[in-house]
Amino acid sequence: MKKTSDLNIVILGNGHVATHLSEALLNAEYSVLQLWKRGEKLRDADLYFIAVSDDSIEEVAKLIPENKPFAHTSGSVNLTKGGVFYPLQTFSKDIDVDWKNIPIFVEYNNVGARHALPLLLEIAEKISNNVQLADAEKRRQLHLSAVFACNFTNHLWTISEDLLNEKNLSFDLLKPLIYQTVRKIETKSPKNVQTGPAIRHDLKTLEKHRKLLNKNYLIIYDILTKSIQDTYGSH
Amino acid sequence: MKKTSDLNIVILGNGHVATHLSEALLNAEYSVLQLWKRGEKLRDADLYFIAVSDDSIEEVAKLIPENKPFAHTSGSVNLTKGGVFYPLQTFSKDIDVDWKNIPIFVEYNNVGARHALPLLLEIAEKISNNVQLADAEKRRQLHLSAVFACNFTNHLWTISEDLLNEKNLSFDLLKPLIYQTVRKIETKSPKNVQTGPAIRHDLKTLEKHRKLLNKNYLIIYDILTKSIQDTYGSH
Repeated sequence: MKKTSDLNIVILGNGHVATHLSEALLNAEYSVLQLWKRGEKLRDADLYFIAVSDDSIEEVAKLIPENKPFAHTSGSVNLTKGGVFYPLQTFSKDIDVDWKNIPIFVEYNNVGARHALPLLLEIAEKISNNVQLADAEKRRQLHLSAVFACNFTNHLWTISEDLLNEKNLSFDLLKPLIYQTVRKIETKSPKNVQTGPAIRHDLKTLEKHRKLLNKNYLIIYDILTKSIQDTYGSH
Repeated sequence: MKKTSDLNIVILGNGHVATHLSEALLNAEYSVLQLWKRGEKLRDADLYFIAVSDDSIEEVAKLIPENKPFAHTSGSVNLTKGGVFYPLQTFSKDIDVDWKNIPIFVEYNNVGARHALPLLLEIAEKISNNVQLADAEKRRQLHLSAVFACNFTNHLWTISEDLLNEKNLSFDLLKPLIYQTVRKIETKSPKNVQTGPAIRHDLKTLEKHRKLLNKNYLIIYDILTKSIQDTYGSH
């Protein structure tokens, strides 16, 4: 094995994860030879990262030479061979991430290439201060919880923005509230800082709100209101 | 009218809003004579704030002397008399808020006490850098959108925490992701930075996730996944 600083890496994929990972690897002084995309000739490397959509990982993995270690970056996919290098983060175009604080979950299954686990751990630790081993079950649960915490949350903000725009109000008005909502969970469990008309069983306000919502938003309002009330019971 | 710095204020209520508002008023060098609660004698003051639960506002307002200006702090309640002083924020025990950045929405309806509107505006402007007039319709929409952006979001984090705890994983692992989710909307509309398996129509991952969820969480997962897919259409 070469010194890791001489390690040549190829990333299969050219989406947000691939781009952000290549930046992190270059900053850690690894050589990234290629962001491979479909139709290109795959270059020879010491290690391959697969950062394509979940449904394409298995197919793309077949392109990698048999004797070479590789890892995919998905929280949800299991392979019978190869490794996993799963950064628990949301990656978007033009928005930097702070890799040092991103938890990276590492696993390696391939009996024929055991040496790749310490290699993946070493790379992860150069990139992040929060590296852990996680098997498929844990990784799947992390990804699932991330969908609620990140993807669904962002969608609720999209709905908020839409509701405000209906009345010519700016989404900026909500930002101090959103920042405070996050600030509360820095030190407390979200379960212990729930506020709002649902937990207060404030029936008049709930009814007023229901009348303002279209059918699609009303379904969401009712389901989440019920879920809050089921979580805390009556007061 | 006295100089505002000599203004004597009574707050009816002793919950989180009342407590945080009293701090802001005292910091702005107003005198807060009393945080009134049920069963106490109401003290004489120049201005009364009503910061009780929405359902009790109308009843509590009747305790205030006829000739005295007052305002309630609710986003959802309309009164035929009196004013509104609505800070768009979530207030919790033991968690400070930065009043300077809180939007405060002011209104005054009472024909017999018009002088109270400039007074409420002046107080609001001493407390916050973001003071606006808003009628009942706007205020209601702000409150409704805040329920999605704050209360429902916090509940999604409660679900995330619950899912992680099922597998002995710490909610702290999600925090860098949550902070980044917020960071993205500092500069972009949430509609333009949606990520995750729902918007990608990643059917395999969606099915894997569905199998991991109990009935109550599955309903939420399905409704929000569908709402995301309805918002963006197929790719």
